[in-house]
Amino acid sequence: MNAVQYMEHWAARVEATLDQLLPAEHAAPPIIHRAMRYSTLGGGKRLRGVLAVSACAAAGGDPERALPVAAALEMIHAYSLIHDDLPCMDDADLRRGKPSCHKVFGEAMAVLAGDALLTYAFLVLGRLPLLSGAAAPTALAIIEEVAAAAGTAGLVGGQVADLEAEGRAKQLSGEELRRIHARKTGALFRASVRSGAMVGGASQEVLAALTRYGEELGLAFQITDDILDVVGDTAAMGKRAGQDQERHKATYPALYGLERARAMAQEAIERACAAVAPLNERGQVLADLVRWLGSRDR
Amino acid sequence: MNAVQYMEHWAARVEATLDQLLPAEHAAPPIIHRAMRYSTLGGGKRLRGVLAVSACAAAGGDPERALPVAAALEMIHAYSLIHDDLPCMDDADLRRGKPSCHKVFGEAMAVLAGDALLTYAFLVLGRLPLLSGAAAPTALAIIEEVAAAAGTAGLVGGQVADLEAEGRAKQLSGEELRRIHARKTGALFRASVRSGAMVGGASQEVLAALTRYGEELGLAFQITDDILDVVGDTAAMGKRAGQDQERHKATYPALYGLERARAMAQEAIERACAAVAPLNERGQVLADLVRWLGSRDR
Repeated sequence: MNAVQYMEHWAARVEATLDQLLPAEHAAPPIIHRAMRYSTLGGGKRLRGVLAVSACAAAGGDPERALPVAAALEMIHAYSLIHDDLPCMDDADLRRGKPSCHKVFGEAMAVLAGDALLTYAFLVLGRLPLLSGAAAPTALAIIEEVAAAAGTAGLVGGQVADLEAEGRAKQLSGEELRRIHARKTGALFRASVRSGAMVGGASQEVLAALTRYGEELGLAFQITDDILDVVGDTAAMGKRAGQDQERHKATYPALYGLERARAMAQEAIERACAAVAPLNERGQVLADLVRWLGSRDR
Repeated sequence: MNAVQYMEHWAARVEATLDQLLPAEHAAPPIIHRAMRYSTLGGGKRLRGVLAVSACAAAGGDPERALPVAAALEMIHAYSLIHDDLPCMDDADLRRGKPSCHKVFGEAMAVLAGDALLTYAFLVLGRLPLLSGAAAPTALAIIEEVAAAAGTAGLVGGQVADLEAEGRAKQLSGEELRRIHARKTGALFRASVRSGAMVGGASQEVLAALTRYGEELGLAFQITDDILDVVGDTAAMGKRAGQDQERHKATYPALYGLERARAMAQEAIERACAAVAPLNERGQVLADLVRWLGSRDR
């Protein structure tokens, strides 16, 4: 299997796990379960989920056992997209090639669907011993890891900083930009890699190597995503291109120019690969994966 | 200590625990931490927190050890109020005698403050072994309990059903009304009592008795709250009176009339007291507490 086949294989397994773990559509009240499923299933690269699975394997664990954690991470990612897309936030109409959640179900239901997905992620993590055979202390460590990454030191904090920076993109320093994205996208990537590694029983040394990998991958992903917003097209991305510029968002290409931004992404990818090099063959998939990510903007 | 003094004593301890566990205001980005603290601290009866503490004591545990769980429950309650008050939901301007979160911090920040409080509650629960000496499997059982009560089978599901029922209050049956409120308010009361009891090391028998108590208390609370919306005044409640009627919400007094609603609350209180009667002296505080609750509408 090459990296693309590997990603596709595990993305499909993560999707199936999500389908299985999310409440059924007909369960009362159906509308909220329809909204949760609409925004979680049937799209996306499942990058966070695949990272958790791959990190579990890289740590020497059975990747199947990381699937419930992978599903929980994707629920949190889906919740954050639903809330980010709300009219009071980024006011985005299109997500993963479909109308965004509030466009289909209304604002109130979109807020509640996000709330429910966030809650449900922790329900799944609370059941990890049952779902994946994790020891209770490991499950708690993963809950702490994921909650910290989703909170104000991570996801939520990054969105706040991003909203605050809007309109003053030009005054932003590279360091501020890096800090925003370390929270907004980086924290959950880092937590995905780390929680997968924990399920896989990683030693402290392996966990440290995978953590560095996750941080560099997060940076590479964000720069590439910013570049795609400039050079990509709406159909291929499933969300509208050019949104960042319209909203005067601070981005890597805006701050550094396209060429320098590409070089920065490449440097982060090299550092990510270097971090997992000591894992030898076990680190190969992760190295392939981050290189594939970097190739998206060509 | 009588019931009121007991409540006030432990409400203050819950408040202090919240103050200690919530992120400091100056931590970056400050605005979100200010919003979280604004909506969580400095008001409310801390009923869910006090219930957790009291149930812990009733099960024979040290009530102090239930304080982190109590704080997590109050964070979840605060998050649900922030989101319920949003313009796209109940559009309420006043909460706990102050302007509601979105009135002060804007809609985007209110959505994010709610998200962060929900997330933070699970961070606290993930750290229970450290914070309250709970065994890891007990902490996981509490996480499952609280997540289930906060999700679509509880809090979120109740809010969805409540929104759906709006405007058709007159067609609603008593059974439908009971089901909405069992989710919207009942589930978190039940989880408060149960998770406190788990920290206190309750036996299956005691847990079952306390669960029945929590369910009946939830019902009594909701009926009394509905009555207060009709007969109470805005200043005393800290939220605007008469809101239910304006929004054509289904309530117990609307469906059954004031006198029958009062009798139903009284019956639920009696059943709650009967449930904890077998605990003898240990159940006394809980019995006093539910009776005090019922006296609020006189």
